[in-house]
Amino acid sequence: MITGKNFIGNSRSGKGDKTYKTFNPQLNTENTFSFVEATEDEIDQAVRLATAASIEFGTLSGIKKAGFLNAIADEILALDELLIKTYCSETGLPEGRAMGERGRTIGQLRAFAALVEEGSWVEASIDTAIPDRTPIPKSDLRKMLIPLGPVVVFGASNFPLAYSTAGGDTAAAFAAGCPVIVKSHPMHAGTGELVASAIVKAIQKTNMPNGVFSNLNSSGIEVGSALVKHPGVKAVGFTGSIGGGRALFNLASQREEPIPVFAEMGSINPVVILPDAIHKRGADLAKTYAGSITLGTGQFCTNPGLLLGIKSEALTDFINKLSEEIIKIEPTCMLHPNIIGAYEHKKDKALSQKGLQVMADKAPSVQANYARQTVTTVEGKTFLQNTTLHQEVFGPYSIVVQCEDVDQLEKIIRNLEGQLTGTIIAEESELAGHQKIVDALQNRVGRLIYNGVPTGVEVCPSMQHGGPYPASTDSRFTAVGIHSIKRWVRPISYQDWPDKLLPDALKNSNPLGISRLVNNEQTKNNV
Amino acid sequence: MITGKNFIGNSRSGKGDKTYKTFNPQLNTENTFSFVEATEDEIDQAVRLATAASIEFGTLSGIKKAGFLNAIADEILALDELLIKTYCSETGLPEGRAMGERGRTIGQLRAFAALVEEGSWVEASIDTAIPDRTPIPKSDLRKMLIPLGPVVVFGASNFPLAYSTAGGDTAAAFAAGCPVIVKSHPMHAGTGELVASAIVKAIQKTNMPNGVFSNLNSSGIEVGSALVKHPGVKAVGFTGSIGGGRALFNLASQREEPIPVFAEMGSINPVVILPDAIHKRGADLAKTYAGSITLGTGQFCTNPGLLLGIKSEALTDFINKLSEEIIKIEPTCMLHPNIIGAYEHKKDKALSQKGLQVMADKAPSVQANYARQTVTTVEGKTFLQNTTLHQEVFGPYSIVVQCEDVDQLEKIIRNLEGQLTGTIIAEESELAGHQKIVDALQNRVGRLIYNGVPTGVEVCPSMQHGGPYPASTDSRFTAVGIHSIKRWVRPISYQDWPDKLLPDALKNSNPLGISRLVNNEQTKNNV
Repeated sequence: MITGKNFIGNSRSGKGDKTYKTFNPQLNTENTFSFVEATEDEIDQAVRLATAASIEFGTLSGIKKAGFLNAIADEILALDELLIKTYCSETGLPEGRAMGERGRTIGQLRAFAALVEEGSWVEASIDTAIPDRTPIPKSDLRKMLIPLGPVVVFGASNFPLAYSTAGGDTAAAFAAGCPVIVKSHPMHAGTGELVASAIVKAIQKTNMPNGVFSNLNSSGIEVGSALVKHPGVKAVGFTGSIGGGRALFNLASQREEPIPVFAEMGSINPVVILPDAIHKRGADLAKTYAGSITLGTGQFCTNPGLLLGIKSEALTDFINKLSEEIIKIEPTCMLHPNIIGAYEHKKDKALSQKGLQVMADKAPSVQANYARQTVTTVEGKTFLQNTTLHQEVFGPYSIVVQCEDVDQLEKIIRNLEGQLTGTIIAEESELAGHQKIVDALQNRVGRLIYNGVPTGVEVCPSMQHGGPYPASTDSRFTAVGIHSIKRWVRPISYQDWPDKLLPDALKNSNPLGISRLVNNEQTKNNV
Repeated sequence: MITGKNFIGNSRSGKGDKTYKTFNPQLNTENTFSFVEATEDEIDQAVRLATAASIEFGTLSGIKKAGFLNAIADEILALDELLIKTYCSETGLPEGRAMGERGRTIGQLRAFAALVEEGSWVEASIDTAIPDRTPIPKSDLRKMLIPLGPVVVFGASNFPLAYSTAGGDTAAAFAAGCPVIVKSHPMHAGTGELVASAIVKAIQKTNMPNGVFSNLNSSGIEVGSALVKHPGVKAVGFTGSIGGGRALFNLASQREEPIPVFAEMGSINPVVILPDAIHKRGADLAKTYAGSITLGTGQFCTNPGLLLGIKSEALTDFINKLSEEIIKIEPTCMLHPNIIGAYEHKKDKALSQKGLQVMADKAPSVQANYARQTVTTVEGKTFLQNTTLHQEVFGPYSIVVQCEDVDQLEKIIRNLEGQLTGTIIAEESELAGHQKIVDALQNRVGRLIYNGVPTGVEVCPSMQHGGPYPASTDSRFTAVGIHSIKRWVRPISYQDWPDKLLPDALKNSNPLGISRLVNNEQTKNNV
């Protein structure tokens, strides 16, 4: 079932002469299939098909879009064993993780199906006319959200299912009514092709227009750049490194018609441990955080890469205990030799900084592609001065900063770059007395966590996944949860439009039975 | 009361040595006051004060922010005659327009006051914990909108009150909880200073933190550029030309931390007249459109600069009648010699294009700074090929395109740049038969109008003012109406946060009594 070809609309196509293979990091060997890089012609054809499909797809009823999204979920489940095995062979991740991530992917698709089937998400708003208003009559105005047009989605290395081919960005864009062109992640191109084939089956079974979806292979940056620069593309979704996301953002901003890029990028997810908490629960916290830092070999965007405390005996004990606990954990495999190469490189750079003390560093005798977990510590003053230490080291690495006092702690937080999350570990009695710390942290993050770990991103309406730059390129949107649909839509107003020609969401009789803002009151009533 | 100085926070300051004056276009002479350009130091001080004020201001209750917004409205009204006279002397606009625009400004401030006093606008969302969920417990998650931080607002030349100092952008930013730094428009710096003094009075009367507002004078591009590049600035609002808006967008995108720019820019607001309508109502339409094209000397962003019809005797009659009617209208004054200079220059450029036929051009013997209204016509094929004819001529100018057939009409619409509005003039019986025209137009605009004129932008929740680029830099937001607040806010999630330390909007007891999404159901109930 894996052919190595692209999907240009519903057709498999492999016109290029550049090929590449995926890699099994557990076996430390290449996988068998060859993937054909998309050509300029294929890229252009995919965008043209998407553009042609966008008007029909963009005006489909919520029920039809829900049918499509649910069919994708069904077809992914039907791939069964083959998908799980391919996933594991291309990532080195265990079967349990593959199945969990598949469940998350299915759950996201079905959540967006439910959202569009219900229909109120279009934020319908109606202001009826006042013909006898003086000095001038008031027109009838009605507003709702409509799709932006073709969206390019970049697959993420660390979520081959939930944030790749049929992941959160794609599900949200389909729900919005936008055709999607996926730039498949080269590290899991086989998994990507299988999921793409499930989407194409769902398109055919539910009679979606050809061009609603394409899947393009690429091992370099050319295909992605060409897609972002193509005038037919209207928005971009990306999950990955700051360098990659910023490059796409720059390309999109420099277009004749700039387009929105939502890039979810790096984060070191600061964890602030207040004095009473570390005094009372230091040992337990050390154990919990040893687990959180090494979870999924540290390959989560919410990995806690920075722990902040105030110098004390209790903090010293915590650092020792954390180091002791983390060394006990058996090393695990990273996704790809390139990922472990980057981990080692960035870690070496951090370790070479003056004033940094290595507290734990797993012995180098680990299996190929397995990551050695590491804990370091540094004085607050040194951390403040050296922003190299603020950079993400993607993997099972964390630095504990020992601040002089609360003022220095606050100053460090204020000087951090934007983050996906910020955690405060505290006794409830001490939290209220540290409002300045909370305020400073809130200013830097998209999600504030109390007495927990940042790893684990719940998919629910109240989840904000995104934050001030460089956590994401636009903190006003989320990449996770149903509200992520807002990235791909824009409002349109209809003025004095004949009722029978209005979209159903705006008709007087409210045939969809949705909640609407009618003359400033939220209601499901007719007009 | 006009000193020519800047407001840096609540203090008047004029440290610079560069000064300029405003101009009375009716009298064709400079006004008396000298305005002192803001210095680099003053710019930096304004941003620092705004940053320092932003945490306190950003967490104020809706009731307190409403009090502030209403106090601004009161203080603007208290400026009375002086404001109206200064406005007229700096714009050449008549007193009636000044009073109308003041009413609109007051209305906007009070609408945002009502919005934040009610409080549901923060889109509070609550998902309660499920501690016994398997395989892992579900945390409690709560989300709401919080302000981005200091916002820079650029005053608009054509709306000295409603889209300048205390205009829509400023009112929305204050409502969101963002401090505002206004880059005053040099053509109406006196009007700007008066309104700024009203804001400062309101700050003092309602005890807002110093730094919530600054007003900076500038006649060139330096002050604006320095503001957009300042790391303390978190978002930008602009109304004006494509060149100006794009330059600011580029600066903001190239920052180390890119920030959102909402620029509402140029538009030619296409009007499509279908055959039956022009046949039945051509003469009336000509009269209506002669009025709309010349309204406010054509200085509205929704001015109809492009009329599209299908070649017929009725269209010829319409063009002749439109030309006859528009010549009858007495010319009026433009805002400034620079504005009329640009009008003449852009019109000359259009008139010099091959294939363009001038149908009406008011005789050149008009008063200084008064604009000569002009109507031209061109074949559909010529218009398609020559995109110079698609450019906005800001002033009382419009071009009528005579298309060969419906297909050419559709093609022309599909090839237009993004627009604020698109109008369809049709008999209801023919509209349904032209779905492709409607679809193509919808794809290019932010607001669709049926049988009306695009001039006149109602301030109400269902108004979308913004559209695909270059109508605005981000079609996902509006510049008019209460939803324009969304430009200046971002969501934040609180995970497992203690109830008593949550913002009121997210507390279990719902002390604000607002509508919230609780476990996927919209309700005002307690949790």
